[in-house]
Amino acid sequence: MMLSDHMSFKEWNNQVLGIGSGSTIVHAVHRLAERVKQENLTIVCIPTSFQARQLILQNGLTLSDLDRHPELDVAIDGADEVDSDLNLIKGGGGCLTQEKIVAGYAKCFIVIADYRKKSESLGEQWKKGIPIEVIPMAYVPVTRALTKNFGGTAELRMAVSKAGPVVTDNGNFILDWKFDKVHEWSEVNTAIKMIPGVVETGLFIDMAEVVYFGMEDGSVSVREKQPR
Amino acid sequence: MMLSDHMSFKEWNNQVLGIGSGSTIVHAVHRLAERVKQENLTIVCIPTSFQARQLILQNGLTLSDLDRHPELDVAIDGADEVDSDLNLIKGGGGCLTQEKIVAGYAKCFIVIADYRKKSESLGEQWKKGIPIEVIPMAYVPVTRALTKNFGGTAELRMAVSKAGPVVTDNGNFILDWKFDKVHEWSEVNTAIKMIPGVVETGLFIDMAEVVYFGMEDGSVSVREKQPR
Repeated sequence: MMLSDHMSFKEWNNQVLGIGSGSTIVHAVHRLAERVKQENLTIVCIPTSFQARQLILQNGLTLSDLDRHPELDVAIDGADEVDSDLNLIKGGGGCLTQEKIVAGYAKCFIVIADYRKKSESLGEQWKKGIPIEVIPMAYVPVTRALTKNFGGTAELRMAVSKAGPVVTDNGNFILDWKFDKVHEWSEVNTAIKMIPGVVETGLFIDMAEVVYFGMEDGSVSVREKQPR
Repeated sequence: MMLSDHMSFKEWNNQVLGIGSGSTIVHAVHRLAERVKQENLTIVCIPTSFQARQLILQNGLTLSDLDRHPELDVAIDGADEVDSDLNLIKGGGGCLTQEKIVAGYAKCFIVIADYRKKSESLGEQWKKGIPIEVIPMAYVPVTRALTKNFGGTAELRMAVSKAGPVVTDNGNFILDWKFDKVHEWSEVNTAIKMIPGVVETGLFIDMAEVVYFGMEDGSVSVREKQPR
């Protein structure tokens, strides 16, 4: 059984869907395309990256954008780590800013991930730090401000298939901030975003409604947002 | 007497200076270049825009960047409006993000402006709204979020010398948000920056140390930050 069969859309038809980035989402989009075809559904897809855009087109789904559909019914995306409060680290694939935009304008944000992303507290599983997208000219002073104000270390993410740093789909750089203690994540997220030169953080706080984990034994573990 | 003669540098030599953008700053840089030559000063200049970079080079000053000088002694810039608490609106020239970065890493941020920029409360003098730099894909939902959450109207800034919108030095778009009431600007600045898709706002809160206004009669009016 596929993770995407578990998704709790009451009505799949006429939905505007945000499509995330990364390796996990590939499987969800394949299954989505099958259901669209089998059930003759009308859906519209908004990508969170160049990769997501290609995935939508390759699977024969209808591509749109936030200009035409500024409000989404559902966004589906992966995550690098999910804690017990449904706080997420995202941006291992470098698409955090567009992912946060698309999730941020969706009525419902659904995360799918494998068991290795499930933790009680951020940092337990994901060891590569929290990605911070920055304006290229500011990467040195932002690195200093991050570590001075919040501890840990921060490194400019370097590219593998080109010389120099990773450049995001928005033309920016990424710092991977390895924190050295558990923080009050909502406060830290705001404080980091207010540092001059920071475009976005890979902390997704109070955004996910439900997370589906594909477990090692093939079962699905579900974490839902607790009502306040 | 030039505005720049009033600046209270105790020691101009061996300073790292941030150089702002806009029409007012041109005069300050001319005068700075004269003093550097006359007094044989060693200073290093960090630009806040393509325009500022050209201005530094054309005036024979030493160009550097935040990679080499992540901390500045002083940043000098203009403003579109200055209220009685030294809160600023900046970004009429579209350079707000790099201007906030350079000012944000300076030990002292000095503003120079003419009398038309001096007001008690933001919006009294400057009628074009607060510029908000946004990721291009998000300009429609950010416009909706801005006006829904904070009232007023927001418009995509259109270019004059090309078809379509203004594209900033960072490859982004600008929304000009015309607010319809006076807000608690520090709170609103944070809340706007946290909207997914917002890169930076043109609100500079609690950043300027001193503002020099060139008055209509040729005199200089000084506003200084009040000690807390």
